[in-house]
Amino acid sequence: MPRRYLNLTPLSEALAVMRREFPSPGRAETVPLREAVGRVTAEPLYAGYSVPVADIAKFDGYAVKSGETRGAQDQRPLPLAGYARINTGEVLPQPFDAVVMIEDTWDEGGIPRIRKSAAPGQHIRRAGEDVRAGELVLPKGNRVRPFDIGALATYGIDQIRVRSVRVGIVPTGSDLVPLGTAPGPGQTIETNTLMAEAYLTGIGATCRRYGIVPDEPDLIREAVETAVAENDLVIISAGSSAGTRDFSRDVVEELGEVVFHGIAVRPGKPVLLANVGGKPVLGMPGYPVAAQTVLREVAGDLLSWWGLSPLPGEELDVRLSRRLASDLGFDEFVPVSVGRVNGTCWATPHPRGGGIQMAVVRANGYLHIPAVREGIEAGEEVRVRLTVPQASLTRTLVCVGRRDPALCELGNHLAEAGYQFHCCNASTVGAVLALRANTCHAATVALPETASAWSDLVLRYLPDVDLFRVPVVRTEVGIASADPLDAGVLTSLRVANRPKSAAAQLLLDSWLDREGIGTDRPAEPADVRVCPAHEAREAGLRFTPIGYESCDLLVREELAADEGIAALIEAARSPGFRAYLRTIGRDPGDGDAHDVFSA
Amino acid sequence: MPRRYLNLTPLSEALAVMRREFPSPGRAETVPLREAVGRVTAEPLYAGYSVPVADIAKFDGYAVKSGETRGAQDQRPLPLAGYARINTGEVLPQPFDAVVMIEDTWDEGGIPRIRKSAAPGQHIRRAGEDVRAGELVLPKGNRVRPFDIGALATYGIDQIRVRSVRVGIVPTGSDLVPLGTAPGPGQTIETNTLMAEAYLTGIGATCRRYGIVPDEPDLIREAVETAVAENDLVIISAGSSAGTRDFSRDVVEELGEVVFHGIAVRPGKPVLLANVGGKPVLGMPGYPVAAQTVLREVAGDLLSWWGLSPLPGEELDVRLSRRLASDLGFDEFVPVSVGRVNGTCWATPHPRGGGIQMAVVRANGYLHIPAVREGIEAGEEVRVRLTVPQASLTRTLVCVGRRDPALCELGNHLAEAGYQFHCCNASTVGAVLALRANTCHAATVALPETASAWSDLVLRYLPDVDLFRVPVVRTEVGIASADPLDAGVLTSLRVANRPKSAAAQLLLDSWLDREGIGTDRPAEPADVRVCPAHEAREAGLRFTPIGYESCDLLVREELAADEGIAALIEAARSPGFRAYLRTIGRDPGDGDAHDVFSA
Repeated sequence: MPRRYLNLTPLSEALAVMRREFPSPGRAETVPLREAVGRVTAEPLYAGYSVPVADIAKFDGYAVKSGETRGAQDQRPLPLAGYARINTGEVLPQPFDAVVMIEDTWDEGGIPRIRKSAAPGQHIRRAGEDVRAGELVLPKGNRVRPFDIGALATYGIDQIRVRSVRVGIVPTGSDLVPLGTAPGPGQTIETNTLMAEAYLTGIGATCRRYGIVPDEPDLIREAVETAVAENDLVIISAGSSAGTRDFSRDVVEELGEVVFHGIAVRPGKPVLLANVGGKPVLGMPGYPVAAQTVLREVAGDLLSWWGLSPLPGEELDVRLSRRLASDLGFDEFVPVSVGRVNGTCWATPHPRGGGIQMAVVRANGYLHIPAVREGIEAGEEVRVRLTVPQASLTRTLVCVGRRDPALCELGNHLAEAGYQFHCCNASTVGAVLALRANTCHAATVALPETASAWSDLVLRYLPDVDLFRVPVVRTEVGIASADPLDAGVLTSLRVANRPKSAAAQLLLDSWLDREGIGTDRPAEPADVRVCPAHEAREAGLRFTPIGYESCDLLVREELAADEGIAALIEAARSPGFRAYLRTIGRDPGDGDAHDVFSA
Repeated sequence: MPRRYLNLTPLSEALAVMRREFPSPGRAETVPLREAVGRVTAEPLYAGYSVPVADIAKFDGYAVKSGETRGAQDQRPLPLAGYARINTGEVLPQPFDAVVMIEDTWDEGGIPRIRKSAAPGQHIRRAGEDVRAGELVLPKGNRVRPFDIGALATYGIDQIRVRSVRVGIVPTGSDLVPLGTAPGPGQTIETNTLMAEAYLTGIGATCRRYGIVPDEPDLIREAVETAVAENDLVIISAGSSAGTRDFSRDVVEELGEVVFHGIAVRPGKPVLLANVGGKPVLGMPGYPVAAQTVLREVAGDLLSWWGLSPLPGEELDVRLSRRLASDLGFDEFVPVSVGRVNGTCWATPHPRGGGIQMAVVRANGYLHIPAVREGIEAGEEVRVRLTVPQASLTRTLVCVGRRDPALCELGNHLAEAGYQFHCCNASTVGAVLALRANTCHAATVALPETASAWSDLVLRYLPDVDLFRVPVVRTEVGIASADPLDAGVLTSLRVANRPKSAAAQLLLDSWLDREGIGTDRPAEPADVRVCPAHEAREAGLRFTPIGYESCDLLVREELAADEGIAALIEAARSPGFRAYLRTIGRDPGDGDAHDVFSA
């Protein structure tokens, strides 16, 4: 039975409350210089001495007294009088006041000669030219970069005080087993704390993952008490929702005060924040993508407030390729794949489910729909935060349509050419429309091999576009059934749901028509279902073929010569890729067939 | 004597030759998932099973047979017949086909009731919704991000094959001592290999630093042979130039073939690349900023060619605040501080010397002047590669002018308010012109405390600008001398060079005038020099005061209310900062004085 309903706090309000409630613990630690990259200075760093300590030679050559070189000219070369051989970086010996580069001299009878007088101070690096003793090198609050390490070492700084935040992460759940264990029935690998550790360590936090705690309030309380004593921030993974096994709220209410429970954010809603002995305890939802939102937007914000540097996701203004609905009052985060097509950057959204981690793995960024918006229209400009370097977008190819596993494999073949391949799922019509709007580099369409499919499903939507088509893979589609489909069965056949692809639907309709079976089929329950031959084989079912579906790659002919699109076409047609398809039991069809079409 | 002159190869040609000469060694290693962040996949990763493995509940509630819920309505609530309590993520037990959320039920007599029928499949996550068994998760060549870790763990992947490059780094130089040792006279701390390690590790290379090798060809050869045997790439630090102690070239010529020696790049010219037994050996110059260029542009390019991901520096188009000269034929890299002033991003260059590491520490990016350009004009658009996250530019303040150590301290005070403070050195006139051109947030001017200085040095250049002025620090300036400046000395006084600041020059001129000494002084040698009182004190010299110089912060009055500039003014005027100045023996003057001026 529902124990309580979540009162949702708006995201911005939740963050403001959190910042007010939890000032920085101000912890710092001393680390050796080698371990300081990415950490944030807790104290300013000053140079202990000047660099160079004394005047030194800038080049290899001779230390000279400038006064003694006066009068040297092209027409009137001079031998050096008093001089000392000196190498770059060596201290200028007394009484010399200038350096002559070795390239500006030549040797005659063992004595170097010059054609040009030396100015006082010439080719000398003055003491303190780089840094003076006592000078500020890095102010506090500065993230240390790799090349800063060299400078700090040069100035004699071999260990530094950096800001430190200890984060304790407590995984809860009776069904959890640690990574490396094969999960039994009803068991799940505990992964969210691993992800939390990877993310928060990247920000500069010092993380400690505790052992898995079963769903028992006493054990959770004990674990949280220990974690609170040992850390500045505690994250309880899972159990922050309102199910019968969700004990996070009960536990933190016993130990302290709830600050908020539930934020108007998607995914990530059931987040819980409590104050236990002055320290924040954050209840992170179990759905992994929801957990990511909480790590990024809530824990990340707190650590930034405490003076750590959040991970730098680059921001970019792009256009949204298709409409996204969202509820007023909810801040929503949507994984997207961004690609630059014909000069414009387009973001194509991936599915938003809190459990669909592959959407985030496939994406190269995410967009934020603010609470004041009810969705965003296709073509609108939106700001995306990238999860890859922006520079990589010039070598990113976005393909919209059927995400056939065979097609995804193209990613491996394109990696050889240095391209990142993004497949965004869409229906065949959706893919064709994306190609029409020029929001993707390529479309993949699944077509039944019938006479009119190409015209009906593709060309009619692209009347003025010349198309380049590469057939990628053929699939035999049919009806999977436990028993043979004999005449008796056929008349009363109930086919499961609708086939996933429009192509299979067309093949099915035409087969039902041929067999004289009505297409007015009940939704459930079913005797048989439509699927590819290999699925029936894997499921050990009988298979009655009804036709072929082909999955083709389409690009606009005018862009086919673009370096990236040409690489994609080449990869799709390459013997290596087609041979690979055969090894995984797929039919590449007639790979050489490809054509330019126009309606 | 010069042993050889470097034949400079253009940068682009050098990189092309290098890529041709050295294909990827194709090394991979297996790392546990936890250590995989930032590494690049060497092989594609596939899901070992489907996630979810079976149909599971999307919410906490009841598993039901949808058929048995038919007819439930607001006016006609139904008790659930057969049902099972189910929590989020649990496998849907047979024979149920839908889930009713707990929030959509209420309890009556121990039996849950509903007001709405359940559709078949409702609130169920289908098996394989996230990923299907055998599906491609990450293609090869993909840099692993923190959140990828969670997904990979979820799919049962607990270790992965990543690309691996072993880099051996050999420091050479008889004058070198390791970090942590106090350098004696003529000794230098060995820092470039530390920096190389920090940078290359960030790219994903596995670095090994060898012990310091003195400048003896036999020892260097031995070290290089060992490093070549143990690594894919060897970097010899220092010794690649043409000095008498530069043995890198001799050694690699004995062991293999020189590919190029000398690139038309600044800084970084004396770089050496050789092929020793098919492996690249890179001679890196000893000047640290030159070494950085070689690490970034040469070693980084090779590792990227070998499939590692270079560090992401974000690129940004900005305007250059002042002219930069450069030689045709040389690719030049210049450290800059980028700040957004009144809506436009401006890059202000720092000094370019190969030994001035502080320029890189102070900078937040660098710009590349291509070999085909002879410098870049003020106001021209240039592309800068940032060494900080782009987002931090919104909280970056650039101040141009006198870089008094007192002013640099402001950086610490601004860090409290979350700002990064950049001081770029310029003369007072240079600072005033930067303020006029609106290319900086603030100017710092050093003014002699004379009647006309403010008008002569500031207002005349800014006739139509209202200025907000905050005095920061006063400095007593005078003449430092070994002996007392009595009348006899004065008549024949030779003053060293020119004082560094125009303000001190003005004070000196007016003092010389008062004392009746001609201003036609020889350049050298000198008896005395002009400097601040504290420098004379530190040097143990007598000090004859000639006047006061004040260092003021100037901002445009129209921008004084901008959040960042207001924070800067507040920090400069804060009692904490002014008290700090006193603790370091500086005179904050009358801190409350500040005014708005207009000519």
